[in-house]
Amino acid sequence: MKEIRLGLLGFGTIGTGVVKLVTQNASLLEDKLGARLIMKRVADLDITTDRGVALAPGVLTSNAHELLDDPEIDIVIELIGGYEPAKSFVLRAIENGKHIVTANKALLAVHGGEIYAAAARKGVEVLYEAAVGGGIPVLSAIKGNMAANNFTTVLGILNGTCNYILTKMTQEGADFGAVLKKAQELGYAEADPTFDIEGIDTAHKLCILLSLCFGTSIDFKDIHTEGICSISAIDINFAREFGYKIKLLAIGKRDGERIEARVHPTMIPVNYPLADVDGAFNAIRLTGDFVGPVMLYGRGAGMEPTASAVVGDVVEISRNILAGIGRRTAPLGYLDGRIRTLAIKPIGEIVSKYYLRFSVMDKPGVLAKIAGELGRYSISIESMIQTARSAQESVPIVIMTHEAREMDVRQALTAIDSFDFIREKSNLIRIEDNLE
Amino acid sequence: MKEIRLGLLGFGTIGTGVVKLVTQNASLLEDKLGARLIMKRVADLDITTDRGVALAPGVLTSNAHELLDDPEIDIVIELIGGYEPAKSFVLRAIENGKHIVTANKALLAVHGGEIYAAAARKGVEVLYEAAVGGGIPVLSAIKGNMAANNFTTVLGILNGTCNYILTKMTQEGADFGAVLKKAQELGYAEADPTFDIEGIDTAHKLCILLSLCFGTSIDFKDIHTEGICSISAIDINFAREFGYKIKLLAIGKRDGERIEARVHPTMIPVNYPLADVDGAFNAIRLTGDFVGPVMLYGRGAGMEPTASAVVGDVVEISRNILAGIGRRTAPLGYLDGRIRTLAIKPIGEIVSKYYLRFSVMDKPGVLAKIAGELGRYSISIESMIQTARSAQESVPIVIMTHEAREMDVRQALTAIDSFDFIREKSNLIRIEDNLE
Repeated sequence: MKEIRLGLLGFGTIGTGVVKLVTQNASLLEDKLGARLIMKRVADLDITTDRGVALAPGVLTSNAHELLDDPEIDIVIELIGGYEPAKSFVLRAIENGKHIVTANKALLAVHGGEIYAAAARKGVEVLYEAAVGGGIPVLSAIKGNMAANNFTTVLGILNGTCNYILTKMTQEGADFGAVLKKAQELGYAEADPTFDIEGIDTAHKLCILLSLCFGTSIDFKDIHTEGICSISAIDINFAREFGYKIKLLAIGKRDGERIEARVHPTMIPVNYPLADVDGAFNAIRLTGDFVGPVMLYGRGAGMEPTASAVVGDVVEISRNILAGIGRRTAPLGYLDGRIRTLAIKPIGEIVSKYYLRFSVMDKPGVLAKIAGELGRYSISIESMIQTARSAQESVPIVIMTHEAREMDVRQALTAIDSFDFIREKSNLIRIEDNLE
Repeated sequence: MKEIRLGLLGFGTIGTGVVKLVTQNASLLEDKLGARLIMKRVADLDITTDRGVALAPGVLTSNAHELLDDPEIDIVIELIGGYEPAKSFVLRAIENGKHIVTANKALLAVHGGEIYAAAARKGVEVLYEAAVGGGIPVLSAIKGNMAANNFTTVLGILNGTCNYILTKMTQEGADFGAVLKKAQELGYAEADPTFDIEGIDTAHKLCILLSLCFGTSIDFKDIHTEGICSISAIDINFAREFGYKIKLLAIGKRDGERIEARVHPTMIPVNYPLADVDGAFNAIRLTGDFVGPVMLYGRGAGMEPTASAVVGDVVEISRNILAGIGRRTAPLGYLDGRIRTLAIKPIGEIVSKYYLRFSVMDKPGVLAKIAGELGRYSISIESMIQTARSAQESVPIVIMTHEAREMDVRQALTAIDSFDFIREKSNLIRIEDNLE
C-alpha cells in the first residue's frame, strides 16, 4: 500500500494528539486515502518524557534537521508555536519541497506573507486549519465550498480562555481576578495568560480570517486589540439588564476598499446564537454575499479537536500527492499575485452603538451635564439606567447610545471625565446587535 | 485565460441563482481560479420566461442532449430535481466523462449507489453540497477537514418549511393547520407540502449525511420517518414547561456495526444551540471521536445560499481540472470498494427518553392505572404533569420518562389506550437531552 511520510515538529500536547489520531484511526484513514500515513520522524527537545503514545524506535529525535532534510518526508507538521525556530524550520522544509501543515497562528499572522511566497516558489501547500478555532473546519470552508462568496462580515469567539472567564463571570457574578485565578488552577488559563486575556491570540486568529475572507495581506499591528481585563461584574450585570451578553469578539468587516479589524469585549443580544457559545467553545460567524450568514461552532482548543484539524489538513495534502499533483490551492485560496492590500480603518472612524458607564458623585444636574456633552458630539441616547440615590459613594449611570462615530464618543468621554463629579474613568463597551 | 465550461440542467430558482453568481462574482472566481467559468449551455423546457439574468445568445436550449453530449462541457450541474429525467441525464453526462454537481437529494438518497459506481468507472467527481443544508458547507467539511474522525452522532434540522412552521407554532401558540396555511401564502411551504411536512425531504438529507459520516450505503426505505402533522400547540406548551423545544430532527447514531437512522419531532433542551435554530435556518450537529461536537448553521434553502453551495462545488472541481487531474476524491470520501453496509437498527430497539401525553376522562385511579402499565413494561417516570380537575371533557396527563426501549413504550401505550378512560390515542415525542 502507498505511504505518505510525515515529519512532526513539536511533541507537546497537540503533537501527542496527532500521533494518537494517526495511530488510532489508521484503518479509517486507509479507507479514505488508500494509503498509509507514516509518522517517520518526530522532533522535540524533550526526547525522554513518556507522552503515553507509541512511536516506532528511532522516530523521536532532538535534531529537527534530521526531519527537515529527510528526502523521504512528504509533509512537515509544525506544532512548535511561536516565531523562532518555527519560522526557520518551516522555510527550510519548504525549501526542501515539503508541504506544510501548521497550527501556528502567531507565525502566520506575522510572517504569513513570507511563508506563502516561499511556498508559491516551490509549489507546495501550506494548510493551517488548526490555527483558528481548534477543530472547527472554518478555514477550509472559506477556501473551499464558500469560495464563491464576497464576504462582508466575519465575527469570532476565538479564545477559549477568555470565553471561559467571561462565561464564569456571567454565570456566577464573580469578578475577573477571581475567575482568572480559578481558570489557572483548572488549567484553562496559562500561568502567564497575557497573550489570551489581552486579546493578542484572538487578534492573530482574526488576522488569518481576514486574509482568507478578503484576500488581503494584513499588518497585524494595525488590528485594534483590547482584552477583557477591564470587564467587571457590574458591566456584565448591566448588560444582562439590557438583554446582552459580553463576549471577546474578533470583528472583521468589509467597507469598500477598506476593512474594519478589531478585537474587543462586545455586547451581543442574548438571543443571538453567538451568545450561547460558552466556556471553552469557539464559534465563527461569516456573512457572504450569496450564502448569507453561516456560523460554525465547536471546541476551540484541546489535544484531540486540534489534532483533528491538523490531520484533516494532512488528508487534504495526501489526496493531492496521491492524485499526482503538488500544489492545488494557494494558502489564502487566492492565486499568488491576486492578494490585495486593503487598508484597515482607524478605530476612531468606526461607527457602532456603545454602552457607556459613568461613575459619578450623586448630585443634581450630573445627568444633564453628561447628556449635554454627548449631545455636543452628536451622540444620541437610546436608553439609560440611573440607580437609586446614595449620599456617600459614587453611583453608576449607564447609557446605551444609538450608532455613533468612535472618535466622537471618545472625545465626549474625555470631556465628561474632566467634570469634578466623575469618580473614575468612564467605561465604554461596543455593541453588535444589527446583524443580518 | 483558461476556461472551465459549465452545462446547467434546470433553469428554475436555483439555476437562476447559479447564473447570477457566476456572472456577478466572475472576477472573484478568476482571482481564485485563474480561469473563467463559462456557462456554455443551459437546458430547460421553458426557454421563454425571463429569469432576470443575462445569458449569451444560443446558450439556452430545451434539448438537454445539446448539453450532455457537448464534448466541450467539463462540468454538468443538475438542478432539475426528482428521479427522472434527472437520473438518466446524470448517468449520460458521466458516461460522457463530465464531472457532476447536483443539489438533488432525492436522486442521491435513492439512486446514489448507482450514480457513484458509474462515476467511479469514468473517474469523474460527483459533488452535491447543495443537497443538504442549502449553503451550509457541511458535506465538504465531513469529507474534508473532519475526514480523520470516526463519527458517532449526527443531528440535523434540515427542512426549512418544517422548522418555520414549528418556530411559528412555538412563538405564536398557533396550531399546525393555521401556520401551514400562512406558510403557503408566504411561499415558505409548497402548495403540496407532503414531502416537507411528512419528513421525507429530511430523511433524504439524513440518508446522504449517514453515508458520508459512516461510509455506508443506506436503504432509504429503512429510515424511520415521522412528520410534524401530529404536533399540536398543547405539546409545544408542555414542552416549554419542561424546558424543551420541539424540532423536526434527523438523527443518526453509530452503535457498533449498526446505526440508528430516524426522522421525527424531537424535544431538545432550550439551552442547546440547536434549539435556537429558528425559521428557515438549518443546522447540522456532528460528533467525531477526535473533533468532538461541531455545529454548522446557516440558510437551508433559497436561491442565493443554494447557488453558493453549487458554485462552491464547481470551484472545487475546477481546481482539479486546472491541476490536471480528473477525480481527486470519491463521492462519499471513502475509496470505491471501502463502503460498508451497516444495518439500521429497528425503531423498536432504540433507547430514548419519552414525552407521553394521555387524554383521559378525569376520574379517580386513572393515574395509578397508567403508571401501573408503564411500570409493567419497566418504563420509569422522571416527571409528570396532571392538570386541574374538570368534570366534563377530557384532561391531559403528561409524563416524561427516563430512558426506555421504544418497543416497551409502544406496548405500554397500546395497553393504556385500551382503557375505557382514554379519550383519544396517546401521543409520544422522543427526547434528546444527553448530548456530549
